[in-house]
Amino acid sequence: MIEKHMIQERIAALRVRMQEAGIDAYLIPTDDFHASEYVGGYFKCREYITGFTGSAGTAVITKDMAGLWTDGRYFIQAAEQLKGSGVTLYKMGEPDVPTVHEFLEQTLAENECLGYDGRTVSTREAAELAEMLKKKGARQNGSLDLVGDIWEERPGLSCEPVMELDEKWSGESRASKIARIRESMQKEGADLFVLTSLDDIAWLLNIRGGDIACCPVVLSYLVMTEGEVLLFADERAFPETVKESLKADHVFFRPYNMVYSYISDLPAGKKLLLCRDKVNSRLTASVPEGVEVINRENPTLFPKAVKNPAEVNNERIAHIKDGVALTRFLYWLKTHVGKLPMTELSAEEKLYSLRSEQEHFMGNSFEPIISYGAHAAIVHYSATPETDIPIEPHGLLLADTGGHYLEGTTDVTRTIAMGPLTEEEKQMFTAVLRGHLNLAAAKFRSGATGINLDYLARGPLWELGKDFNHGTGHGVGYFLNVHEGPNSFHWRSTPTRKADTAFEEGMITSDEPGYYEEGKYGIRHENLIVCVRDQETEYGSFLRFEHLTMVPFDLDAVIPEQMTERERTLLNEYHAMVFENISPYLNEEERDWLQEATRKI
Amino acid sequence: MIEKHMIQERIAALRVRMQEAGIDAYLIPTDDFHASEYVGGYFKCREYITGFTGSAGTAVITKDMAGLWTDGRYFIQAAEQLKGSGVTLYKMGEPDVPTVHEFLEQTLAENECLGYDGRTVSTREAAELAEMLKKKGARQNGSLDLVGDIWEERPGLSCEPVMELDEKWSGESRASKIARIRESMQKEGADLFVLTSLDDIAWLLNIRGGDIACCPVVLSYLVMTEGEVLLFADERAFPETVKESLKADHVFFRPYNMVYSYISDLPAGKKLLLCRDKVNSRLTASVPEGVEVINRENPTLFPKAVKNPAEVNNERIAHIKDGVALTRFLYWLKTHVGKLPMTELSAEEKLYSLRSEQEHFMGNSFEPIISYGAHAAIVHYSATPETDIPIEPHGLLLADTGGHYLEGTTDVTRTIAMGPLTEEEKQMFTAVLRGHLNLAAAKFRSGATGINLDYLARGPLWELGKDFNHGTGHGVGYFLNVHEGPNSFHWRSTPTRKADTAFEEGMITSDEPGYYEEGKYGIRHENLIVCVRDQETEYGSFLRFEHLTMVPFDLDAVIPEQMTERERTLLNEYHAMVFENISPYLNEEERDWLQEATRKI
Repeated sequence: MIEKHMIQERIAALRVRMQEAGIDAYLIPTDDFHASEYVGGYFKCREYITGFTGSAGTAVITKDMAGLWTDGRYFIQAAEQLKGSGVTLYKMGEPDVPTVHEFLEQTLAENECLGYDGRTVSTREAAELAEMLKKKGARQNGSLDLVGDIWEERPGLSCEPVMELDEKWSGESRASKIARIRESMQKEGADLFVLTSLDDIAWLLNIRGGDIACCPVVLSYLVMTEGEVLLFADERAFPETVKESLKADHVFFRPYNMVYSYISDLPAGKKLLLCRDKVNSRLTASVPEGVEVINRENPTLFPKAVKNPAEVNNERIAHIKDGVALTRFLYWLKTHVGKLPMTELSAEEKLYSLRSEQEHFMGNSFEPIISYGAHAAIVHYSATPETDIPIEPHGLLLADTGGHYLEGTTDVTRTIAMGPLTEEEKQMFTAVLRGHLNLAAAKFRSGATGINLDYLARGPLWELGKDFNHGTGHGVGYFLNVHEGPNSFHWRSTPTRKADTAFEEGMITSDEPGYYEEGKYGIRHENLIVCVRDQETEYGSFLRFEHLTMVPFDLDAVIPEQMTERERTLLNEYHAMVFENISPYLNEEERDWLQEATRKI
Repeated sequence: MIEKHMIQERIAALRVRMQEAGIDAYLIPTDDFHASEYVGGYFKCREYITGFTGSAGTAVITKDMAGLWTDGRYFIQAAEQLKGSGVTLYKMGEPDVPTVHEFLEQTLAENECLGYDGRTVSTREAAELAEMLKKKGARQNGSLDLVGDIWEERPGLSCEPVMELDEKWSGESRASKIARIRESMQKEGADLFVLTSLDDIAWLLNIRGGDIACCPVVLSYLVMTEGEVLLFADERAFPETVKESLKADHVFFRPYNMVYSYISDLPAGKKLLLCRDKVNSRLTASVPEGVEVINRENPTLFPKAVKNPAEVNNERIAHIKDGVALTRFLYWLKTHVGKLPMTELSAEEKLYSLRSEQEHFMGNSFEPIISYGAHAAIVHYSATPETDIPIEPHGLLLADTGGHYLEGTTDVTRTIAMGPLTEEEKQMFTAVLRGHLNLAAAKFRSGATGINLDYLARGPLWELGKDFNHGTGHGVGYFLNVHEGPNSFHWRSTPTRKADTAFEEGMITSDEPGYYEEGKYGIRHENLIVCVRDQETEYGSFLRFEHLTMVPFDLDAVIPEQMTERERTLLNEYHAMVFENISPYLNEEERDWLQEATRKI
């Protein structure tokens, strides 16, 4: 924990720099230069200046005010971390709380200047800011890094070693991917394609790195021309073999920061394909006059989301390995609770060690959530030494964790009865499970979206006048980011995630309804499901899902009478499949336990 | 049936007028001057020039081509009616068939001129045409009525008598409605509001007429200012008492056609609220420079769609009356088939006479669809003397009909086993019924739309790889148009109907999944359901539906074993409610029959 007086000193130092630079309000988003969901240490300016460590939020500093905006997931944590620092918490979405842009509009007077690092603000947001400031007669300067100027102990840019992902894992060669994307580029009439989102670059080049915790990406920008691919990255991270392999596919290195001057030196008449929502505003501001920008979704978006048959097949293998580790973990929990001392953190370590036993395990796919009792009602809880509590032989434990394997990425949540439960806990466990099973069993016409199907998961809760305040599922990368677009489930699109993409064969999506009682317990059931072809009829193509995740749901928390016959059948069929796939890898004791855990109800 | 040579003569005459007027292609849509779904005799120019009588389509005539564009519902009928006329059928939505606009773009050369009657083309469409023509260097003239010029026996503008709808039926006084809409107008900063859609005008003024078959509307335009309402209509249609009542609310008459000069004479500086999708292009072309147009949805749209408590209460009464008539009809059909001669048309007459026995019955709410056997697979079939066939004691009869009452509008479909059925007919009857019941039983959070809920109705068919190619439900007016926006059910928005409106308490929507086997049979189950408040919880407001329609579903066609227990319960509860509400109005024989028809399964 950072001491409060240090925050005050940092803000004071920033204000001095602001005055020197003629800046009246300074905006500090969470983003790195690549609009990543999570960011590396070098980029944590917002955390440095406010002390708030959550994954989402925006700071604004003026001469006499320091504010932090964050969303409902983080109200409690932010209030705690900001206490005594002099930073005001703005609870986004609460009544009468202005948005960041509204606040800036109210605050900035005519001729005053807003400052920010344009590399951390998307092109679209910068354009919105510019329009607002124009109305006010105020100005902006996006070429500053004032926090960087005062941050003496700032970590360096990450430069973790890069590996090449063999075609047996990726299912498609780099050359083939580049050719496909170049085709899209040419279809749009573009001479160049600028790609800055890190998971897209890793996917396209069949490379993986470690520049963001749990996200095996490589810090880089990429520019594709008709004949070559320029990779703006720190060459030192790349082993010789990888460099040679890249060169063979006409991928050539440029220094990471040189992308800005490369773009600004483009000759007039060129046409540049890029996605304004993803590319940062300093890069688009570098585009010289006479160069035309074609604003489109990245052509890598769908090829990355639609897993090829080799990837799907690998994912099945990854999920069996992960299922073995998880099953052993459940067995360990259920048979040792109350006998061995265990806490949220020690359980997390146990699970990590079980996953590590599996071949090709590459690390956690996100910060594990092992939350016991009331902790599980905090949707984004992740135990720290300060918050860690013992797991006792009663109530519910929620475990939302995942692993990266060469065969793919897993993301699974199980809620486990550690002993006796209340009737309410069982009822809600059962209602959430019904929704989970019904969504996974959907059969639908090609063209249907997450908005069409979400009711299947949410219906059993809505019938009770209950709900959960998060999406029902997100796309998942292949040994890549655990959150990936465009596929998702939600009953309505939110500003940060749309749910209007039609499912396609090969898309992998999580199915994770939940229910949370603040101060009491939390329930979530999550499997990854892959979209597969069902049948062609005179009405067109029909699709459905198949479970990838292979881990039993805890029958000790299920009330079979509250499920329909069809729902019981779905659960029994799933459990039979889990036993069939997982039991061959277990010892006798574990196998006996799994047999009982997957019994027919 | 119009003889083919007459069509050829009319097209030849039109081409002479086109040459005189310097027109190279002449566009003839189906619309009247008010973008009505159905139109009166005066407006049937497209039918006059092509001989095609369907409710949707567009004709284009050039020097050497005559074409008709229509959609899938009408391919068979249009092919039949156009045969030998020299008019080419363009099947909309089929591969390689250009749209009307694409055709015009391909056909019109530089400096050539497109002609149409701007009163029959929406402002939005005219703008799209203008843009396309500009690219081509071609021109347009929207101030022509060339078909009118050659149509000697053209019917006059309808001038059916107008009635006032008492507040006990409408639930809100004219003055109150005008005040509410004027508030919306002022909120938009508008000085005037131009309303041209006929059902909106009838709703706003609490008047009903008969200027379109089955649509109790009054041919008129309306302009609201800050102090008065101008009604551009044929005053002769209004009884003295209605005129006085309108005058008392500051509603003043102007001649129907004078609206164009009224608008063109507006002084500069005025702000005009109107909906570009609804107001015709000649009217907006009349807006003088210096007058600002504020383009918004009509502020009448939601107040009209959200029925007030008096309207909902009246609708319940209307549906009991209608249920009595329908139940007697079903009884008559089931007990007389095979004994008395009956045909589609004679059944239609029988049902009309049964409805006529009910107090306050004001006529059919749409052209009845009584279709036997294979006819029911033609979704928009309506029997004529030429197509009428006997109803025999086997197979399925589909009856989609509705009535207007002072207490509201009904729209109900029942599919009736006239005798032995095939196993397939029963299976599909049951699958469609499951969807119908599940949708009507939905409970959902405020904000949910037809796109969220549609899967409930379509799921049982999608599970079988089947579907129906129409929406699952539409809004219904109060003693007004049977098709009314913005509420509807569909899994995706279509160009003509969106399904993204959140349901509100008081909205009345049809729930009408179906299934059609071409050449064999058709099934549709349709009730009107009203959205009601369910409960408020910490997650917000929850809503659900209540059945308005009170007519048994034919248990002779149901396979109970193919329904879930919950679905059987929903059916049994609905049938108990039907018996309770309808039986008091039946004689003993009918009552005994209904008891059996609503038995528990």
